[in-house]
Amino acid sequence: MDFDGAMLRAIDASRAAQGISSPNPPVGAVIVAPDGAVVGVGATQPPGGPHAEIMALRQAGESARGATAVVTLEPCNHTGRTGPCAQALLEAGITAVVYAVADPNPTAAGGARTLHAAGVTVHEGVGLDAAEAGPLRPWLFRQRHGRPLVTAKIATTIDGRIAAPDGTSQWITGPAARAHAHEIRSRIDAIVVGTGTALRDNPKLTARRPDGQPYAHQPTRVVTGRRDLPADAALRGGPGYLHVHSHDPAAVLAVLPDALWVLVEGGPSIIGAFADADLIDEIDHYLAPALLGAGASSVGAQRVTTLTDKRVFRRDVVTELGDDLYVRYRRQLGDGAGFRAR
Amino acid sequence: MDFDGAMLRAIDASRAAQGISSPNPPVGAVIVAPDGAVVGVGATQPPGGPHAEIMALRQAGESARGATAVVTLEPCNHTGRTGPCAQALLEAGITAVVYAVADPNPTAAGGARTLHAAGVTVHEGVGLDAAEAGPLRPWLFRQRHGRPLVTAKIATTIDGRIAAPDGTSQWITGPAARAHAHEIRSRIDAIVVGTGTALRDNPKLTARRPDGQPYAHQPTRVVTGRRDLPADAALRGGPGYLHVHSHDPAAVLAVLPDALWVLVEGGPSIIGAFADADLIDEIDHYLAPALLGAGASSVGAQRVTTLTDKRVFRRDVVTELGDDLYVRYRRQLGDGAGFRAR
Repeated sequence: MDFDGAMLRAIDASRAAQGISSPNPPVGAVIVAPDGAVVGVGATQPPGGPHAEIMALRQAGESARGATAVVTLEPCNHTGRTGPCAQALLEAGITAVVYAVADPNPTAAGGARTLHAAGVTVHEGVGLDAAEAGPLRPWLFRQRHGRPLVTAKIATTIDGRIAAPDGTSQWITGPAARAHAHEIRSRIDAIVVGTGTALRDNPKLTARRPDGQPYAHQPTRVVTGRRDLPADAALRGGPGYLHVHSHDPAAVLAVLPDALWVLVEGGPSIIGAFADADLIDEIDHYLAPALLGAGASSVGAQRVTTLTDKRVFRRDVVTELGDDLYVRYRRQLGDGAGFRAR
Repeated sequence: MDFDGAMLRAIDASRAAQGISSPNPPVGAVIVAPDGAVVGVGATQPPGGPHAEIMALRQAGESARGATAVVTLEPCNHTGRTGPCAQALLEAGITAVVYAVADPNPTAAGGARTLHAAGVTVHEGVGLDAAEAGPLRPWLFRQRHGRPLVTAKIATTIDGRIAAPDGTSQWITGPAARAHAHEIRSRIDAIVVGTGTALRDNPKLTARRPDGQPYAHQPTRVVTGRRDLPADAALRGGPGYLHVHSHDPAAVLAVLPDALWVLVEGGPSIIGAFADADLIDEIDHYLAPALLGAGASSVGAQRVTTLTDKRVFRRDVVTELGDDLYVRYRRQLGDGAGFRAR
């Protein structure tokens, strides 16, 4: 049987675990009966809660007997706060396991070997590219580089301005671009802005649906810089607020030990500090079809002199969002990802 | 018979006349025999030379008798330096004429009426949108607004930089983007840069093929600004060089009375001056997948204070050129095209 379709469904299911599962990987699992019917779908629950395989097995119940488990990541073999998934799959009567990504974590790995030794048919690498580029990407990045994946978000005019000379910037981009950015906020661990942005725009930095309702998962809100924010600043409301009294990216990442994916929203100084530290792994560029001609640029780095100082990315998404263009740039995994958190 | 395909071929043929025909319209004509065979193709020759219809009729010879002429613009009715095309079509024995755009020029118009009165079947408006968006666009713009169509060309990093702090800018974009920009140069009437750009980069501003060979048509090279260029500056070589001793766009356009299409290549001050005068009709944006973090921006306007001062365009082309993205923005014909040349 061809399990590519089921793997895409498992990847899709894992999206709901992004941000919620950290520091654990957001995994998706699908149980496929011998006749091809999907009898269970699950995603990783918050730390301490069940893994994706357990959620999918619960939904499948007795239908799991003789079925195939399709999982985005190799089932774990260790007993942490939850029991090992490999054991649970065996007990449920699963006879074949298909997964995309081998677990690079030496503590958790070995699930495949255990399953194989128990007579289960095991296939590794199914849908590997899609799984690595999907919700697992920040976790895989952290496994490899010892720090979260960092995305810089910029919203600019054609001439690269993020605001007019008087500081007005609402709105450069349209509702579709803003809704897209909020959906990403709902899947990240932390969102970072400088005190300048916080003082000027007084943003909430929450993840909200177009109707204003908050998403279930909200990122930690981090403000960086020496200045204090007023007690009634919008982003100080509720839990998950941190103030780091410098723009040093190492200091910012140090207060986020469990984060897999961090979004740096601006302004130019804080994005520039991350650029100077070679700590920008992805760029989300929302590009409005307007010319301004003056005002701040999106990135203000200090350590740039000549053209060879530029950092080259790979463009991997170009899509229209209403009147705006959305372009996502990525540095490839393994490319000089600079700084390794201590 | 369906003449949409023949009209696209006529539009395509007219491309070769762009820049060469000015101030006359770059027209394309195709002669289609009763059996559907294309027996003649022509495009407008330089001023004083034959129009497109005459070129196509010459190629068709006796095959024009009983054939249909497919032309991007209504055949002219007046005797200028060349005889009226309507008369030539009649004499060649053409029995039907299909054209896209009615001639808005009262002196030349009336060809359709003359042809109809002589018993020729006449169809107007075939392939109208494609013809108006094609090589005729700058000429139609000039007919309507009394000044050339102005395109601003910018080549930037993701963060909107056109050069590093030390002025280095070669190359921000790759060979495919540069080849594309040179092909556009081969179809425009004039290319405009400020003295700052001329002194720093010493550009030739000629239209060259990737192998370095010049295109047949070369734009007039215009330098604007108070500073003098050295006698051996690259762009002073050969004919078609003008120096306007100010950045005033009105002064620039005044020295180009026959121009249909002008490309403003930079730097930021001269593009900014055109933006301040509301004289940017199109933007060619070449966007490289690189982050620089410092250096000049593409447009430096003076009359911009707040976000509502922004000018909104319509994005009509997004395409990949090697590693770069090419985005073309247009103001719609009829939109507040500002300034009308005196």
